[in-house]
Amino acid sequence: MRIAIYPGSFDPLTNGHLDVIQRAAKLFDQIVVAIANNESKNPLFTLHERCALVKRAIQHFPNVEADTFDGLLVKYVEQRNGCAIVRGLRAVSDFEFEFQLALMNRKLNERVETIFMTPKDTYTFLSSRIVKEIARLGGDVGSFVPAHVREALSEKLNAHS
Amino acid sequence: MRIAIYPGSFDPLTNGHLDVIQRAAKLFDQIVVAIANNESKNPLFTLHERCALVKRAIQHFPNVEADTFDGLLVKYVEQRNGCAIVRGLRAVSDFEFEFQLALMNRKLNERVETIFMTPKDTYTFLSSRIVKEIARLGGDVGSFVPAHVREALSEKLNAHS
Amino acid sequence: MRIAIYPGSFDPLTNGHLDVIQRAAKLFDQIVVAIANNESKNPLFTLHERCALVKRAIQHFPNVEADTFDGLLVKYVEQRNGCAIVRGLRAVSDFEFEFQLALMNRKLNERVETIFMTPKDTYTFLSSRIVKEIARLGGDVGSFVPAHVREALSEKLNAHS
Amino acid sequence: MRIAIYPGSFDPLTNGHLDVIQRAAKLFDQIVVAIANNESKNPLFTLHERCALVKRAIQHFPNVEADTFDGLLVKYVEQRNGCAIVRGLRAVSDFEFEFQLALMNRKLNERVETIFMTPKDTYTFLSSRIVKEIARLGGDVGSFVPAHVREALSEKLNAHS
Amino acid sequence: MRIAIYPGSFDPLTNGHLDVIQRAAKLFDQIVVAIANNESKNPLFTLHERCALVKRAIQHFPNVEADTFDGLLVKYVEQRNGCAIVRGLRAVSDFEFEFQLALMNRKLNERVETIFMTPKDTYTFLSSRIVKEIARLGGDVGSFVPAHVREALSEKLNAHS
Amino acid sequence: MRIAIYPGSFDPLTNGHLDVIQRAAKLFDQIVVAIANNESKNPLFTLHERCALVKRAIQHFPNVEADTFDGLLVKYVEQRNGCAIVRGLRAVSDFEFEFQLALMNRKLNERVETIFMTPKDTYTFLSSRIVKEIARLGGDVGSFVPAHVREALSEKLNAHS
Repeated sequence: MRIAIYPGSFDPLTNGHLDVIQRAAKLFDQIVVAIANNESKNPLFTLHERCALVKRAIQHFPNVEADTFDGLLVKYVEQRNGCAIVRGLRAVSDFEFEFQLALMNRKLNERVETIFMTPKDTYTFLSSRIVKEIARLGGDVGSFVPAHVREALSEKLNAHS
Repeated sequence: MRIAIYPGSFDPLTNGHLDVIQRAAKLFDQIVVAIANNESKNPLFTLHERCALVKRAIQHFPNVEADTFDGLLVKYVEQRNGCAIVRGLRAVSDFEFEFQLALMNRKLNERVETIFMTPKDTYTFLSSRIVKEIARLGGDVGSFVPAHVREALSEKLNAHS
Repeated sequence: MRIAIYPGSFDPLTNGHLDVIQRAAKLFDQIVVAIANNESKNPLFTLHERCALVKRAIQHFPNVEADTFDGLLVKYVEQRNGCAIVRGLRAVSDFEFEFQLALMNRKLNERVETIFMTPKDTYTFLSSRIVKEIARLGGDVGSFVPAHVREALSEKLNAHS
Repeated sequence: MRIAIYPGSFDPLTNGHLDVIQRAAKLFDQIVVAIANNESKNPLFTLHERCALVKRAIQHFPNVEADTFDGLLVKYVEQRNGCAIVRGLRAVSDFEFEFQLALMNRKLNERVETIFMTPKDTYTFLSSRIVKEIARLGGDVGSFVPAHVREALSEKLNAHS
Repeated sequence: MRIAIYPGSFDPLTNGHLDVIQRAAKLFDQIVVAIANNESKNPLFTLHERCALVKRAIQHFPNVEADTFDGLLVKYVEQRNGCAIVRGLRAVSDFEFEFQLALMNRKLNERVETIFMTPKDTYTFLSSRIVKEIARLGGDVGSFVPAHVREALSEKLNAHS
Repeated sequence: MRIAIYPGSFDPLTNGHLDVIQRAAKLFDQIVVAIANNESKNPLFTLHERCALVKRAIQHFPNVEADTFDGLLVKYVEQRNGCAIVRGLRAVSDFEFEFQLALMNRKLNERVETIFMTPKDTYTFLSSRIVKEIARLGGDVGSFVPAHVREALSEKLNAHS
């Protein structure tokens, strides 16, 4: 069985993430969406909340699960017997950073491969950061995230203000 | 009448910004320099100060005005009946981020167009961030910003220290 | 009256070009689609054919016309009293080359401004070169070019083989 | 069974290609190295020669085969029941072009996914073009290509001169 | 005597930095590794610690010394009679920022030249930031930094937790 | 004595090349402008003509000479006892290609270092290709190349037509 790990902050999950998950799910036997703790980045949603939002979004994919992890990604991938790390690429700036990470992870563990996938062209501009920015400024993010993420964003941001 | 909006933080206005304003003013009937509140970015100058510095710099352009805005840029553009957003491009890294914003703004409001202009080649390295950094380190920014901005920078930075 | 020039080889016109034309037509009083002779590039379609294909595609835009030119673009822009050159940007590699051209054209004629616009996100991959390549390999280009361009391509390529 | 297609000109195969093949072979049940005819590119080696050089290099990989194809890549992928196209990424310029191709191929056939992999860091500079250039100038390409490709290059280039 | 200045934060020195130092030391009579104070960046190591780590790493290079500086780099270069600033380039994103800095420094002092060098290909992914991140997550950085830097990192991070 | 090699096609020399030569001449004891034969690129000027144009332009630099070479650059650098290859960088696309070449040359000869320098900001758009294109279209290249190169261009292009 080939397992691929799709790591990220998912703060929160967007339709772009979902699109990559759906595509990757056709290429591997199992996809693990691995949500990084990343407390130092001051995420808007707690690790638990981010994981719950992902879980609800993937419930209809039989071979996709969500999990959380702490520490080095390559160690987590090894624990889970992952053969590949999946990363979405939208732009050149993504590419360079991801490329460095992939080379670094390969140095740390030669057995872990990184593969890059591209989301649907209409999602190339999408990022969690831009979605949060729009939501904060009162814009409608209904076409950028699943309905339950949109609700969670509006609750969270109202609670903050 | 065709109105174009030139949005930004303008913290503070540089000669590169002025160059773009001057070029855009020939292409549209009215240019609105739209200064974003952006409090979360911890600007060096207050919104009021930034607006005053811009106003003084543009007083000789008959079809340019300065204004401030809060919230989503596309909503502001609509309020002002703007037909276009003007953005300056200096480098590839600018380009990618601006490109994503332009696509995103178009998703939020299909009627708003973004156009990109390039400043004079001798200004390609200029940014508000670099100007502030040089001023902080005691360098002379006289050839990078208008005289009144240079004065304001030196007052502000002396007051801080 | 403000006239903008949209220059290119248009060998042949794609839906991406049409998208830029339509967007630019809202920002200026008149758009001139200026088809470069470019014989040295061995175009698939003759200058006359390329111009005819553009003309048919723009017939419903009241303020857009097609023309051909030889020699330096900046001289043509001056002849036509253009205030701006319009260029479409799809990718970083486009950007760099276009950026150099814009600076060079400004050196050759300081009065001519270049503005960049981005086509619809679903057209970011489109280019005349890729369309010709697909058509040559027997693929269907019906969603990438107007119907009459698709027909012209299939006639031209059958005649070649 | 999941089959991935690794297309290219392979004119000739380099150690960078072999590295990608070896990595991809761990992720899929079967890898098809698909050598494009590409006569219009004036390859140094004939399609038959290129295929023979690849076949000899992959003979020890049980789940890798070499094949040639003509026409649209997506059609070939469909014929072979491929679930993914594999492409190697070395640099930003690669990335942009590959990104456009991937989006285009997805337009032509939504069921075909493209994944990108990165070769070993010591191969990031390697390309068939650079290898041919060095060989033509009399340099030793022994650390860039398998031994039998090096021999084929030297025979081919001596025959030419 | 030609002196070149190699400025940076060196928080901490990596094997990539050492590689650039070693290469530059062959091109100039004297190399000054100039460690910027940069308190505003919240370095992990104090200026004194960073300087000590560099000094120990370069003790076997007869024509390399370490120094610290405050304020504008171009002023420091002038004080030291430097003819050139040396900068390492690993990636496109590096390049753009460095390019802007080089142009800016030239504006501030026309006599100071910037030259760019590339580290060994196996270090292209290395940065102080990535090394600190791995060390924080409990990874082994032994192949990315000299032994004494690795020890200093582990002491510092244990003291923090 | 430290000798640096500045290789290129110089078809023909531009003011951007001259700017790099002048800057490099301050950093090394001797600069060799090394003009590549490159017959396969169909240069506009013969090797002899290109060399003569460079020689006339550098006659006032006491430590700069012009030479021609065939074959691998690293072999020529070794013959001349060069310690470094100098390359001008103008843009990201330059950077990537140059970066690959530098890594490749290092593989071929570990003792040869490549350093990158940036021309004056007003020359960032300049290339021999663009200069030839403008001259062919009848534009004035007087501010892009030395006077004797401008004359040579106009003679050459009139002779061609």
